[in-house]
Amino acid sequence: MDENLAVMDEDEVHADRVAAILEAVETGDTPRLTALMEPLHAADIADLLEQIGPAERGALLALWSGEIDGEVLSEIDEAIREEVIEALPPEVVAEAMRELDTDDVVDILENLEPEEQGKILDALEDADRVAVEQALAYPEESAGRLMQREVVVAPEHWTVGEAIDFLRGADSLPDQFYHVILIDPRMKPVGYVTLGRVLSARREVGLKSITEDSFRTVAATDLEGDVAYIFNQYHLISCPVVDQGGRLVGVITIDDAMNVLDEEHEEDMLRLAGVGDEASVSDGAVETVRQRLPWLAINLLTASLSAIVISQFQDTIATLVALAALMPIVASTGGIAGTQSLAVAVRALATRDLTQANAARVVRREVLAGLMNGLALAAILGLAGSLIFADWHLGLVLGLAMIVNQVVASLGGVLVPLGLSKMGLDPALASGTFVTTLTDVMGFFAFLGLATVVLT
Amino acid sequence: MDENLAVMDEDEVHADRVAAILEAVETGDTPRLTALMEPLHAADIADLLEQIGPAERGALLALWSGEIDGEVLSEIDEAIREEVIEALPPEVVAEAMRELDTDDVVDILENLEPEEQGKILDALEDADRVAVEQALAYPEESAGRLMQREVVVAPEHWTVGEAIDFLRGADSLPDQFYHVILIDPRMKPVGYVTLGRVLSARREVGLKSITEDSFRTVAATDLEGDVAYIFNQYHLISCPVVDQGGRLVGVITIDDAMNVLDEEHEEDMLRLAGVGDEASVSDGAVETVRQRLPWLAINLLTASLSAIVISQFQDTIATLVALAALMPIVASTGGIAGTQSLAVAVRALATRDLTQANAARVVRREVLAGLMNGLALAAILGLAGSLIFADWHLGLVLGLAMIVNQVVASLGGVLVPLGLSKMGLDPALASGTFVTTLTDVMGFFAFLGLATVVLT
Repeated sequence: MDENLAVMDEDEVHADRVAAILEAVETGDTPRLTALMEPLHAADIADLLEQIGPAERGALLALWSGEIDGEVLSEIDEAIREEVIEALPPEVVAEAMRELDTDDVVDILENLEPEEQGKILDALEDADRVAVEQALAYPEESAGRLMQREVVVAPEHWTVGEAIDFLRGADSLPDQFYHVILIDPRMKPVGYVTLGRVLSARREVGLKSITEDSFRTVAATDLEGDVAYIFNQYHLISCPVVDQGGRLVGVITIDDAMNVLDEEHEEDMLRLAGVGDEASVSDGAVETVRQRLPWLAINLLTASLSAIVISQFQDTIATLVALAALMPIVASTGGIAGTQSLAVAVRALATRDLTQANAARVVRREVLAGLMNGLALAAILGLAGSLIFADWHLGLVLGLAMIVNQVVASLGGVLVPLGLSKMGLDPALASGTFVTTLTDVMGFFAFLGLATVVLT
Repeated sequence: MDENLAVMDEDEVHADRVAAILEAVETGDTPRLTALMEPLHAADIADLLEQIGPAERGALLALWSGEIDGEVLSEIDEAIREEVIEALPPEVVAEAMRELDTDDVVDILENLEPEEQGKILDALEDADRVAVEQALAYPEESAGRLMQREVVVAPEHWTVGEAIDFLRGADSLPDQFYHVILIDPRMKPVGYVTLGRVLSARREVGLKSITEDSFRTVAATDLEGDVAYIFNQYHLISCPVVDQGGRLVGVITIDDAMNVLDEEHEEDMLRLAGVGDEASVSDGAVETVRQRLPWLAINLLTASLSAIVISQFQDTIATLVALAALMPIVASTGGIAGTQSLAVAVRALATRDLTQANAARVVRREVLAGLMNGLALAAILGLAGSLIFADWHLGLVLGLAMIVNQVVASLGGVLVPLGLSKMGLDPALASGTFVTTLTDVMGFFAFLGLATVVLT
């Protein structure tokens, strides 16, 4: 409760600032606009640009383009990044890109059209352009694209003192680094030492004697989702990246991994709901329709399956029209049960808590839980139906259909994502549509079928 | 695609190891069990304990209890932690707890029964017990509970050399630290310096001249969800925590923030689906029923609303039984549209991309997108209905009802979570049930109501 209240307070302050900024934009008051924008963090400027409408965004950028820096472009949502970059003078974009680390430039470039990509690549300094092009040569969503190429290494036989002297003398060091990576003569990483240990150990101590147990490497071709999992599972802060020959080519830091984890969560949530995985509040209505209509059209087809099932029982319904009113109860409760089972299974697959080792046990658990839920709901619905319609046969049909559909729902909720995963597909991909189609069809079929047998 | 295939390969290796471990447990072969468990990381041992059944878990712990360390207890899912702790000899638990940092002990204790809490507190060393009790005095889910109390500080006037000499001479330093926090004489933090800068700067440089721009503090009473947001938004690695007087009381590191972010995502996903936010694959069937049945029972009630709506149109249905078969199409497509709109809104509220500043714009976008989706689906369904039933009046009714319900669905999907948020409630809390009830009731009402007017 308090959490959201606190957020609401901040939200009001934020809304006031946004209103003031939009007013300055409208009146073309550049000094006031600059004064209002100046204290904002790049991430907050990016959020602001995402939250206002396209026309306001264009006007703001026209007035304020000189001040946009690389960090803002790096923070901004992909949904509007291309639009923002196109609205800026080419020299502003070029200058902004030159400020960024190469991994951030890669992150921006990989989602632009080839033509825009080329323009930005041409604006980079030679060394950076080569680094960016090398990163883009790795597959999309791979560790190679995520890593920074600036690494801090030391030969494995060095002492703490030698490492400190080297760091003091270094021309430039990465903005963020947390470990000194030890390498053998062939550039293979063999361990790492945290900066805390380097600082607290005596100068004559060998680096090799104070390495961390947590040391592990990832391959440049590993998928970023697997890398994020490893960071989260083993509480890593940074992780060296190696090529096919095991040689060090870069390092991934936890802030990048956290970002990937966040994106994967977003993907799971949006895909489960049948929205493209790039949906954003900044999208316009047309973009929103483009994302949602395909799944709605598919659902129109699958819903027709339910209609076909129901139409087989038209004679039964004609005999007792009350059946038409009651049948959605069984179908809808099944839909909720399927969604529950599905959410738990998709989450457990994402965190790798659901594996081959325990799949059978989880499936048994779902069947048993579905049966127990079904019995409880059947008791309530069956009794209510018997009393309201003064017909215990009808109550019996309601109860039995509920039990069948609850078991099917729990089972479908776990088997559909497990099956998609077995086939090498994303378990979240449209599972929701599959499962609710299943529970709808089964709910109508079980209820009307039983009604036909028992009541007519 | 490749991602899941890669996971499946690892998954098979993992399944083989689990099978071997369970075999060793069954035959009571402790040396073999120890040999199989030894190479595993604490996080993987915790996962293993979560994935096997309760009986197997008990047998494994009985054979292997001596080897369990604090890190395993810290990694293990809350759903089974109490069970594991109760299965272990008290001296093993006490020893394991003494190994952990106080923030990890707090994390374990806060979810145990008071009796178990007392036993563990008694087993701690005096200084640690006081630290843990002080942390537990902060509200649940606050920064005070999340922070570690071990901090590395330096007076603001120190030089790099003084800081290095101090660190070299320190008796004990935290396992993980990334910054030296500068404090004024009243213990108020005034900035921080990354260890990388301490290492690379010359000894005579003043710490104050090399502090980071990203510096910010959080209050001990701030909610952990807000803290995680700040880490993610501003790419922090660590963040000092201050008391009401602004004095430094601890520090939160990014691995803890990443963990909170992950838990919040889980909560959103499970709550949206109407499952308690503690659902886990390790839960037994009874626990699963306890989490899911309440929402199913609520849905039984809300689904009865649909039944009541439909029953008002029994005469219409009796006249044209085909209506009973067609009505779920409109309701179900509305349910999907509502879920889509809802998922985008809940996600945007969680990432604070949906605020008062843009709520009106997003609501307009949803109405427009709902109208456009509705028109497209109405065209398909209306035409199909007209042709199949050779009745353009029926097609018209289908199409109009579809348009109405699509607009209601998109609008409900964004207004329900916004409303919950305004009331200070979690926008994800059971929004799914509200929205699908709305789209079901509206779908049936619009379709049958229009049918009554147009067709009879």
